[in-house]
Formats: sequence, structure tokens, C-alpha cells
Amino acid sequence: MPTINSERLLSDLRRIADFGRYQTGVHRPHLSPQDVESRHWLASRMTEAGLEPVIDGVGSVIGRSLKTGPRLLVGSHTDTQPRGGWLDGVMGVIYGLEVARAFAEDPGTAQFAVDVASWADEEGHWGGMLGSKSFIGRLTEEDIDKARHREDGTAMREALRVAGLEGKPREQMEEGRYRAYLEAHIEQGGVLEAAGKRIGVVTAIVGIYLFRLTFNGVQNHAGTTPMPIRKDAGVAMMRVYNHIMQKFPTVSGPRSVWTVGKLSLEPGAPAIIPGRAEMLLQFRDADQAALQRFEAALLEIVAAHNRLGPCAIQCENLSRTKPTIMDERLLEALDAAAETYAKGSHMRMPSGAGHDAQIIGLRLPAAMMFVPSIGGISHHFSENTADDDIALGCQVFADAAARILSAN
Amino acid sequence: MPTINSERLLSDLRRIADFGRYQTGVHRPHLSPQDVESRHWLASRMTEAGLEPVIDGVGSVIGRSLKTGPRLLVGSHTDTQPRGGWLDGVMGVIYGLEVARAFAEDPGTAQFAVDVASWADEEGHWGGMLGSKSFIGRLTEEDIDKARHREDGTAMREALRVAGLEGKPREQMEEGRYRAYLEAHIEQGGVLEAAGKRIGVVTAIVGIYLFRLTFNGVQNHAGTTPMPIRKDAGVAMMRVYNHIMQKFPTVSGPRSVWTVGKLSLEPGAPAIIPGRAEMLLQFRDADQAALQRFEAALLEIVAAHNRLGPCAIQCENLSRTKPTIMDERLLEALDAAAETYAKGSHMRMPSGAGHDAQIIGLRLPAAMMFVPSIGGISHHFSENTADDDIALGCQVFADAAARILSAN
Repeated sequence: MPTINSERLLSDLRRIADFGRYQTGVHRPHLSPQDVESRHWLASRMTEAGLEPVIDGVGSVIGRSLKTGPRLLVGSHTDTQPRGGWLDGVMGVIYGLEVARAFAEDPGTAQFAVDVASWADEEGHWGGMLGSKSFIGRLTEEDIDKARHREDGTAMREALRVAGLEGKPREQMEEGRYRAYLEAHIEQGGVLEAAGKRIGVVTAIVGIYLFRLTFNGVQNHAGTTPMPIRKDAGVAMMRVYNHIMQKFPTVSGPRSVWTVGKLSLEPGAPAIIPGRAEMLLQFRDADQAALQRFEAALLEIVAAHNRLGPCAIQCENLSRTKPTIMDERLLEALDAAAETYAKGSHMRMPSGAGHDAQIIGLRLPAAMMFVPSIGGISHHFSENTADDDIALGCQVFADAAARILSAN
Repeated sequence: MPTINSERLLSDLRRIADFGRYQTGVHRPHLSPQDVESRHWLASRMTEAGLEPVIDGVGSVIGRSLKTGPRLLVGSHTDTQPRGGWLDGVMGVIYGLEVARAFAEDPGTAQFAVDVASWADEEGHWGGMLGSKSFIGRLTEEDIDKARHREDGTAMREALRVAGLEGKPREQMEEGRYRAYLEAHIEQGGVLEAAGKRIGVVTAIVGIYLFRLTFNGVQNHAGTTPMPIRKDAGVAMMRVYNHIMQKFPTVSGPRSVWTVGKLSLEPGAPAIIPGRAEMLLQFRDADQAALQRFEAALLEIVAAHNRLGPCAIQCENLSRTKPTIMDERLLEALDAAAETYAKGSHMRMPSGAGHDAQIIGLRLPAAMMFVPSIGGISHHFSENTADDDIALGCQVFADAAARILSAN
């Protein structure tokens, strides 16, 4: 069975963190100069590992193995959130690279082929998971034409041109090429740490439903408009939010989460009654039935408040992703590998965050593995994982990959 | 008794609306180029009316009468809210000008002196009511040094320099010069319209208390952080807001108003649990006791939620203005004048909005008069008042001014 080189692994992780270093983390949004530079560095490391890399027309780096044995696709992403962590995404990509290297160094696995991918824009600066979507044919040219940077509004076409990727083909998955897709990632939560475990075997990636609620009232002077005749959009929003927080626990599953992460009042001045208000509500669950219960409860609440008045409420779905169930045979390989190298220190768990595996999983059997996040922190430059956990995770991951490719 | 010239009045109002015209309203924030231009035009109209105008070191225009008879100070403001109405403020200034002109044209009032003022920055682009505060000695040089434009952060000193007002003295009220201060204004609410009245005699200007509530939780990933361990600052804010809306009606006076006009979540992303939230709560009443009941209720709510957790809440007072009670003898003159020209169509009422009269009222007996706002709309370019109501209001106002100056 393959043995990973933990010094080589950590050295690669530290090297790629130079591209966009920000305090103890990394600022490397997709197609930023630092991101583009890091992709070229990654491609050169793939070449050194005997892979044949290409940076494709949407920015994904795909390093194909020249081996002819049974083949896995292994990947994650190297782009980051603004001022994000040094491991979120990139750890899974370097794991893939290290697995390819470790396989080549062991006669028992030297024939196995591992294609390694860094999927473009997982973090959604241009739309989210564009690289994995493109790879399985779920991204059109029109989608790219329309894509704008979420912060500065730059056209993605322009950013691709500046990155030297204009006109480059977008790589497509070949039917029948892979046995499975594997992705490793930091947990981004505190479940492993709280349970005292070092490896998480991911059973499912949650589905995410996102809704925008818009409240239309009448803007007016906060001093001269008597309370009984007000149509305060902010008050209407607060009432619906309150109702949601009372109702949702009654239809929740054991691991459901729901969040209002953004809300606003217009015009947003202390002496003006808000004429318009808006909130974004998101809920997640690995169980599709729970998502449907939340949606039904939300629509019921909105209808009740619309009947009550005085503000008109619109409830608009912005996105619905289904839960992705991981492949049980792959999970068993991960369990077995974890039991070999981290006896009793592994557990099965769902992923509360979205990952490229939910996209690639639409076309291939897929599985994911987590390592612990210190303090459960992610999407922040202080995100970290113990070096020993990074190394252990890669060894378990490599072992599981070998088991999967060795199976009949 | 004086007779106003309604064509001259309306013509002046229409002319000054050219400075900063925006759709059917006006965009003329204090010290904007259009505002400065309008002040020079106003000064020239004062000169034509026989007044001696000066634009002072904070931007107020004060036109002094050369007459030696008993004297009134009459004023309001010519600056506007962004994309505001064509009458808010300026109507009261042009009323003052028209009263001075009508007095001069009538032998019975020709000896009466009327000083007319357009107070700087009533609308608070630099702090609020700076002109009237300066005039009664409640504004220091340090206040001006520190003042910044609320939207673009420009230093007020710099704006005064550009306006050509650098180093100009700030006019100060001479003790004993005036019998009283009068101010006319659009109502900015719908009370007169709803009551079918054409003149409002203002009994008091409400006091305004403004508080900032800050909620400190823990920012985290909206997918990977289980509900029971969350410290969601947005949820904490919603609960306090809800509690305020339940509690305040129980301590309210008949005309109390309270408003949350601004709130925010940080970082404000759909997939991030807010670590910090902030809301501005304002309440107004003409009765000081009601304001104190609201403040006590607010502090009690905050203390209760701080005990409850999980977020820490700070409640900070940003300002407290006391209610200003109008002078009863002045009100009686306004009642009598209104009964003469608008028999049965006048009413007494408090002002829910703040006005320069609450500042000048600290040093002089003061009173205010309202004319109806169509649809109760203000702080919006569609604000309007019927021409007949504008003319009637000025006639009543002139008649009341003459009564006040004629009294022994």
C-alpha cells in the first residue's frame, strides 16, 4: 500500500500559500493575478509528478495521468474566499498530487492512474463551482458570457482574457474514464474536534435552498407618520423573521441549519420609515424531505403575513441544490483506510458545506473525506488544521484510493 | 392688516426651486454648489425687499430690517434632503420675505421690523440645524472643525472655503432685539389632510431620542455550525426588535412614534452567520415623560436579553433632544389669524419633525405654523402643497406676525 511523504505534502501546501498570502491565510479569489500564478505553479508541480496538466478555458487545472491502469479523478479547488484560509480547497488538490506521487513510488500501486483537478471558482466569485460544472457539461458559453465578479462586476470573459485563457477549450469528462471521484477537504466546522476524531467520512453533502424575501411598504417621515397608518417594511421583515425562527425548529431534522445572513432596509436612514426591506434566508439539510418541509413552512408563513398585511411580501427562490448522497462502497474504503491508520478516530458525518463533489457526483460515484478544523473556523485567514492531521488525512486518503482501485 | 402678494410669493418659490431642480423637487444639500448659488439669489431678493442681508460663516443667510419698530425673527431653511421637495424649509423663508414686503406696503404695519433667516444645514448633511445653533451660541469652532459631510466625508471647513465663506464671522443673536421667533413649514405628515384642515398651529416640537444597539455574536459558516452552538447576532437583533415592538405600545402616549430606520448584519453574506449586527432606534414625543418611559423600557429589554444571551448587546444613546413647548401667546395670535382667514379650518397639533424653532426657542418665545402636505409626503421630490394652501398660509402667517407686533 502507498506511503505518502508528509514533508513533501506540507512543503507544497506552504509553497502555494505564498500566492496571495494574507496574514496567516490566503487571499486568492478565482482569476485574481495570484490565483492565475498559483495555477501555473500547480501545473508545473503536476508535470514534475508525471502528470500532463492543462489549464482550461474556465481556469480549471487538470493533470492527467499517462498510466493505463484503473483510474480515479481526485480534486478540489485552489481558489479561496476573500482573506480566507490556507487549506480550504487547496489541501484536497495537493492530496491528489501526493496520492499520484505516492502511487508511482510503490510497485503495488504504480500502475494506478490518478487524474488531479483544481476546479475553477468553487468559492463563487463568478457563480460558484464553475470548473466542476463545466467539466460535466453543465456550464454553457452563455453562462460565462453573463458571469460577473460578485464584488466589482468585472465580466468573466475579460478576466479570462487577462489571465491568458481566452479561447482555450474547456476540458470535458470522458465517459467511462473514471471509477470514481474522491475529494478531501477541511471540515470547516467543529464536529470532529468536539468528538475527538481525526477523520470524517462524508456520507452526504447537504442540499441548500436559498430564498429572497422582499417586503414592500410605504417610505415615510419617522416623525410625522402616526403608528397606526404606517406600512413599515422593516417591521414586516422582523415579524416574518421572528415567525421563521419559531416555526423552523418544529419541522427541523437533527442536523438542519437555517440562516439569515443578509438583510437590509431602504432607504436605511434613522429618521425614515423603511419603504422596502429584503432578507436572504438559506436552509441546508442532507435530507431532501427536511428541505421540502422548510420550504412549505416558509411559504405558509409568507402567505399568513401577506393576508395580515400591511406590507406586500414576495418570496423568491434563488437556488435549490439537492443533497448529494455519497457512494457506499467508496465510504467503506474510506472507513477501512481510516481504521488502519487512525483506529477508532474516525466517524461518518454529512457535509454542511457545498463542494465540487456534489457536481462531479452527478456523473460519477463520489465520496469525500474531512480532516478537523481547529476551533471549527473557516472562511477566515485564521483557519488551520494540525500538521499531523493534514499528514494523517493524506495517508488515509491515499490508502482508500488504492483500495478503491484495487477492488474488482 | 397686511395683505400678502400670492403671485410674488409663488413666483419666488418657483424661482428658487431652479437651484438644484430634480424632477418635480429639488436636490440642494447645504453647501452644494446649487445651495450656495441659491443663498446669493436669496440675499439679492432680501436686498430688493429692503433688508440688509449677510451670508455668515456657517452659511446662514440673515436679512436684517432697517426699521426701528418692534421686531420679529422669522425663518426656516433653504437646504434640502437629497432629491427632496421644493417646499420643505424654503417655504418658511420666503414667507418671512413676503411678510417683510407686505408689512412695508401697508401703512398700518410699515414700522414693524422683520429679520428673515435661512438657517444653515437644517437637514443635517453636516450635523443638523447648525445655522440656528450657531446663531444662539450653541456651536463651537471645534464643532465645525470636526464636521464631515454625512455621505462623502468632506470636511465642512473645506466646503465653506469652496463656498467662499472661509473666515466670515458667524452672526450671533443680539439679546433683546426680538419679541419672538416664528417659523412656517409644510406639515410633512397627513394629519391636516386627514382632518380636512388647512392651517396647523404647532403646540410643541417633539423631543427625539436616538439609540444605537450593537449585537456581538460569533461569525461562522452557515453550513457547518449546528444551530444549538450558534451565536447569531442577527437573530439576537431580531428578538430585541420584536420585543421592542411588543413592549413600546404599552408605554406609548397617544401620538408617540418609534422607528428602526437602519439595521445591518456583518459580514452580510447569505452563507455566513452574522457575527455582528447593529440597529438604530429612534422615538419621538412632545411629552418628556413618554420619552423617559420609552428609554426605561428599552434599557429593560436590553438587560433582559443580555441576561438571556448568547450575544452581548450594547445600547448607546446617540442623542436626546427635549420637547420644545411653543409660546401660548404666539399660538393665540396664530389661532386668531387662522380664524380670520380660514374660519374653522385650523387646528392645534404637535410637530413630529424637528425644526430650527426648537433651537431658537431655547432663547426666544417661539411658534410654528403648518400648511398641509399633499398625501402627507415629504423628504421626497414628489412632496407638494396646493398653491391655494401656500398662499392662505402666508396670509395667516403675516396676519399673526402683525398681531404679535401690534400687541402691547
